[in-house]
Amino acid sequence: MKRPTIGDIARRAGVSKAAVSYALNGRPGVSEETRERVSRIAHALGWRANTAALALSAERAGVVGLVVAGPAPWAMVEGIERELAVDGVALQVAIVRDTEAEAETYRDWWAARRVDGVLVIDPRSDDPRIPLLRKLNVPAVLVGAHAPDMSAVVDDPVTECRRAVEHLIERGHRKLGHVAGRAELCRNAHRREALWQVSQELLGVVPVATGGDLQATRALLARPDRPSALIYDEETAAATTVAHASVLNLRIPTELAVVAWGDSAVCQLVHPGVTAIRHDDGAAGTFAARLLLNHLKTGIPEQRLVGPGELVIRGTT
Amino acid sequence: MKRPTIGDIARRAGVSKAAVSYALNGRPGVSEETRERVSRIAHALGWRANTAALALSAERAGVVGLVVAGPAPWAMVEGIERELAVDGVALQVAIVRDTEAEAETYRDWWAARRVDGVLVIDPRSDDPRIPLLRKLNVPAVLVGAHAPDMSAVVDDPVTECRRAVEHLIERGHRKLGHVAGRAELCRNAHRREALWQVSQELLGVVPVATGGDLQATRALLARPDRPSALIYDEETAAATTVAHASVLNLRIPTELAVVAWGDSAVCQLVHPGVTAIRHDDGAAGTFAARLLLNHLKTGIPEQRLVGPGELVIRGTT
Repeated sequence: MKRPTIGDIARRAGVSKAAVSYALNGRPGVSEETRERVSRIAHALGWRANTAALALSAERAGVVGLVVAGPAPWAMVEGIERELAVDGVALQVAIVRDTEAEAETYRDWWAARRVDGVLVIDPRSDDPRIPLLRKLNVPAVLVGAHAPDMSAVVDDPVTECRRAVEHLIERGHRKLGHVAGRAELCRNAHRREALWQVSQELLGVVPVATGGDLQATRALLARPDRPSALIYDEETAAATTVAHASVLNLRIPTELAVVAWGDSAVCQLVHPGVTAIRHDDGAAGTFAARLLLNHLKTGIPEQRLVGPGELVIRGTT
Repeated sequence: MKRPTIGDIARRAGVSKAAVSYALNGRPGVSEETRERVSRIAHALGWRANTAALALSAERAGVVGLVVAGPAPWAMVEGIERELAVDGVALQVAIVRDTEAEAETYRDWWAARRVDGVLVIDPRSDDPRIPLLRKLNVPAVLVGAHAPDMSAVVDDPVTECRRAVEHLIERGHRKLGHVAGRAELCRNAHRREALWQVSQELLGVVPVATGGDLQATRALLARPDRPSALIYDEETAAATTVAHASVLNLRIPTELAVVAWGDSAVCQLVHPGVTAIRHDDGAAGTFAARLLLNHLKTGIPEQRLVGPGELVIRGTT
């Protein structure tokens, strides 16, 4: 089946191609009766406007870009795509290996008018993408950090952290440990800050901290001020500790409680299941897409806060 | 910074916009010296051709589409994107909730000329996408199954299965079990067929089989003809069994060996690590993208076999 063209519609309707064009574009020059007949035939043939032509005339690509380096949170991509679809905007995704390739992708997309705007997930401290996008003047939404004069979706680590720490205090814990994720991600910097603030407020001390691998967890447990509960920035690191409890010679949760900041299938794969702060990544993606669509219409950046994650209590606490 | 236009280049070069257009499109009407000066200025300004205009003139969108329902293998998406980038073709991704939404996406994309072709991953038996794409006459590549007159990338389950079964026989196993994945995926149907064929050939029996959840594994282990080694279609199901070994009252690998068909981070997250058949998803994606680009140039469908997966031996065998 060939794609239906204006010519096909014209033949079927028994009018000129110009008349079809007038009818479908809502311009004068054809009778109402012809306009209706042409619309009906166009619909029956499954005709759609050529987006390349629309993009040229409207100076809009009808496409939003997302560049990711490594696995993206799938639920967030799904949330983005769903909201863009409401306005008939498509999502274009590029997967790159490094920051340089990412910058080059933005330059190409923007200069060639392939996208109308971009979404930036997992912003980093001193993120080179932010000054680049500002310099190019690309409408952009950051997911997970603020930047002056840019649209952003930010979360609420203090509230969700307070929920987790209050839960651990109820369970009798007084000494907490923090197993940190990659320090260059703004998200992890915010989590660290929130956890320290809440721990000082509720327990009068800051938690002992370490990097994310199993060796680091082992070192933390060997300290004289050994914590009885650990909060992990990365759920896979939390699940790995649970999976290796026998190797670490640990009974969970009696000898060690574990909380993951972020929830995914791995938290339920292990035994016992990992208590986790569950974020609605889909909602964050939807908000981000809506901010970008608004930004494209109004030119005005906006910030939006997504609700704090829910604490899902499982066997590790 | 505004996007540079033909007008900006003309002003900077001191020539007319028409002359810039002639120079950049390689058409006669300007001197070689002007052509060079214009190219140099265009490059310095970071000018790129407007893809919407290119798409209109060439009848090509310069975009390939991928529709996924749920998490896609990220390495494969990365392989696809990398190969498309070689030819300057972009990847557009849609995430949908059901088959109907997927079909509608193909119809829209194709009718509106948003994409030049599509990639279909995880084909299913009686997959409605295949007749739809054939009817629309959309250039398409299937990843993981054959269909007459369509481009396809297929794998080699018999060879990789033989490697796994030979390894288990070396370890002394004579009774195998198969923990099946979703039956409607062609991939799993091919795996089942391959495993039965290889088991009959090397052991003279077919493996006992069951569905994929922990309850099903438990039932398999309660049978009088209890297998001593299980091959799982889904690595998360294999890792879940390992993580719950203490609950199942099982010592792994002494009382039960576990092999996963497919490798991912979860195989190393649990203890002991899961022996797995590792596929090069990136290479499969790259092959698929190349087949589609060839198909777009020549109109001729091609099939390509990706090499068998490697057996990565870990603590569960």
